[in-house]
Amino acid sequence: VSDLTLLTPRGFRAAGAACGLKTKPGTPDLALLVADSPAAAAALFTTNKVVAAPVVLGRRTVRSGRLRAVVVNSGNANACTGAQGLRDAKAMAALAAKALGVKPAEVLVGSTGVIGHFLPMDKIAAGIRDAAARLDRTPAAAESFARAIMTTDLVLKTSAVQGKIGAATVTVAGVCKGSGMIAPNMATMLAYLTTDANIGPAALRSALKAAADISFNAITVDGHTSTNDTVAILASGAAGGPEIVAGTPEFAAFADLLRAVCQDLAAKIVADGEGATRVIEVRIEGAKSDKDARLAARAVANSPLVKCAVHGGDPNWGRVVSAVGYCGAKINEKKLRHWIGDVLVFDAGLPTAFDRAAAEALMRRPRVLLRLDLGLGPAAYTCWTCDLSKEYVSINADYHT
Amino acid sequence: VSDLTLLTPRGFRAAGAACGLKTKPGTPDLALLVADSPAAAAALFTTNKVVAAPVVLGRRTVRSGRLRAVVVNSGNANACTGAQGLRDAKAMAALAAKALGVKPAEVLVGSTGVIGHFLPMDKIAAGIRDAAARLDRTPAAAESFARAIMTTDLVLKTSAVQGKIGAATVTVAGVCKGSGMIAPNMATMLAYLTTDANIGPAALRSALKAAADISFNAITVDGHTSTNDTVAILASGAAGGPEIVAGTPEFAAFADLLRAVCQDLAAKIVADGEGATRVIEVRIEGAKSDKDARLAARAVANSPLVKCAVHGGDPNWGRVVSAVGYCGAKINEKKLRHWIGDVLVFDAGLPTAFDRAAAEALMRRPRVLLRLDLGLGPAAYTCWTCDLSKEYVSINADYHT
Repeated sequence: VSDLTLLTPRGFRAAGAACGLKTKPGTPDLALLVADSPAAAAALFTTNKVVAAPVVLGRRTVRSGRLRAVVVNSGNANACTGAQGLRDAKAMAALAAKALGVKPAEVLVGSTGVIGHFLPMDKIAAGIRDAAARLDRTPAAAESFARAIMTTDLVLKTSAVQGKIGAATVTVAGVCKGSGMIAPNMATMLAYLTTDANIGPAALRSALKAAADISFNAITVDGHTSTNDTVAILASGAAGGPEIVAGTPEFAAFADLLRAVCQDLAAKIVADGEGATRVIEVRIEGAKSDKDARLAARAVANSPLVKCAVHGGDPNWGRVVSAVGYCGAKINEKKLRHWIGDVLVFDAGLPTAFDRAAAEALMRRPRVLLRLDLGLGPAAYTCWTCDLSKEYVSINADYHT
Repeated sequence: VSDLTLLTPRGFRAAGAACGLKTKPGTPDLALLVADSPAAAAALFTTNKVVAAPVVLGRRTVRSGRLRAVVVNSGNANACTGAQGLRDAKAMAALAAKALGVKPAEVLVGSTGVIGHFLPMDKIAAGIRDAAARLDRTPAAAESFARAIMTTDLVLKTSAVQGKIGAATVTVAGVCKGSGMIAPNMATMLAYLTTDANIGPAALRSALKAAADISFNAITVDGHTSTNDTVAILASGAAGGPEIVAGTPEFAAFADLLRAVCQDLAAKIVADGEGATRVIEVRIEGAKSDKDARLAARAVANSPLVKCAVHGGDPNWGRVVSAVGYCGAKINEKKLRHWIGDVLVFDAGLPTAFDRAAAEALMRRPRVLLRLDLGLGPAAYTCWTCDLSKEYVSINADYHT
């Protein structure tokens, strides 16, 4: 349903404001999301060991499992900013808390943008005041929030689904930003989700982890993990009905809605990857273990040679097969099969006499499927990436710090 | 000394021939190296689990520690060719053995080029006959061998050093090819070395492993390990003197000569990396363990964002620091220091107020040093890569299988 927004789940208001963090005047760069009452909350953060101040703070904040608000700035990542950065992140939570009449410990802070610069706190303060004054439940307010977290993104990324869980109609919605996995001067992946499901923090966290694992954690643009990556969800419970408990059919139904939104958002990040002209789906089947399936999928998805071949529309099975060969997983080339779309191009150690024109046509579609059956076990994993173009090099070489 | 060649070490002859494997007529594509008498030998092969037929055969051949000849073709990798490929590799050894009057088990076979195609054995046979008839010890013969193993290489790669070990003057020499770590339709890294040192196979293998570890195994163009990579050395013993035994000062002196040649050849591969305009040296110090030092060095060297930043001459310390952050090694950003050349740009979690113009000037040199001290222990590792340019994308996207 296309008219659902981040604010369709009942119990939330949002706004975006422009406070001058970005170079171009009037560009939205301060986003505020507020729950009418304390919401169950869960969040996942970057696995990078160099982490930005808002991530250090955010890990503590979400421990309570309850949030009233999310405040995010773009244009400055507040990363590599030391003790001053942490003070600034705390001040940002305090400013939002004051403007909203909630506690600082109930406010999750997010930042994205250039790293190594201190936040201009006067601008942040003005932005928070401005956004707090404009909070609304309209589609325009939802879009305003989504725009204010963008950096190098070319398109707005938003997704939502609705379903019945018992008697309750539950909506799960989300917005995200990201186009390189990182471009430390302007990037990072941030995703904020809302739902009106009646679910507690532990079950929410469990569903979020499962969904992220096969969505946000299954995409790569350049293999580079940001210092600021954050995925957070707030559940207002306003849909009513009994509380959704892990291990029940109701939980499975909720997890499914959440997975759908996360996968849709993740796909939008890849499609908007820096310089991307097409999305590549790498599907590994028949691996000996889950770990092997992931290793194989990521090796193919991160290979610049594979990404260049897809960019050129070239059915270059050799690059795919050799990437699987060095990925570290158990591989037996005599059992290996590889398809481009539904065209079998490599079978048990040997290339097939495949229809080259058909394979080339499949390689030129907006979405290219590279499928491999390792023939060694039951494990499978799918991940998504984009092609590697000259435009990627332009964006990342010609752009200066 | 610049007039040393692959055939300066006494006891070897070589030749190159054109047998029509490459598209352009008359391009050398068959190389032969012959020892006057059985030479001590050692070789290292790709760690890829998808391996070409000559690698399968070569691993068996070198087990004896003695070789009389090396035969290499370019233009066809004999990879992903199954049982027929292995028969062809054996036939190639037999053809060379017959032409030279030695045993097939004394001939190491190498192949590089397109994968998934059977070797045209009639052309190979003609090439071997032709090369065998032209074997010589001249610099022209050495160059002819080196040219015949090239594929996408833009420059001939050769290196040699000479030193006294005891009373004997020992030469170590080598040639290599490679410009992408792999571009499975025309690439792979191959290196062939000769020496007249009097050294046995076990000591030779030990020295080769140590040298390769900090040379050929410390370079990356695109992180993609080929199915055919091979480094082999033959020692004729013609320099005389007592046999060099592992653990002695003489062994250390020999290992040092070998390391110098391997590092010089490896540097030449990186400098000729597809689309490369500059070489990047990534030097990690202060790591907790050797493994951590390698993880950190390789994460920086394989980051397309770092490689693009160097291409653009941009002192983008954030990309370097965040790559170290996600590499999997133990990292504490508060102990981390990063220099571009000798300019300290990041110190204990914070960027410094560095001289931007000086750092930019260092980034625009043909050779850029990115140095990091993790501040956690004694381990160090250095690796080399090249920048990522639009030309890399052109070579790998516009080139069709």
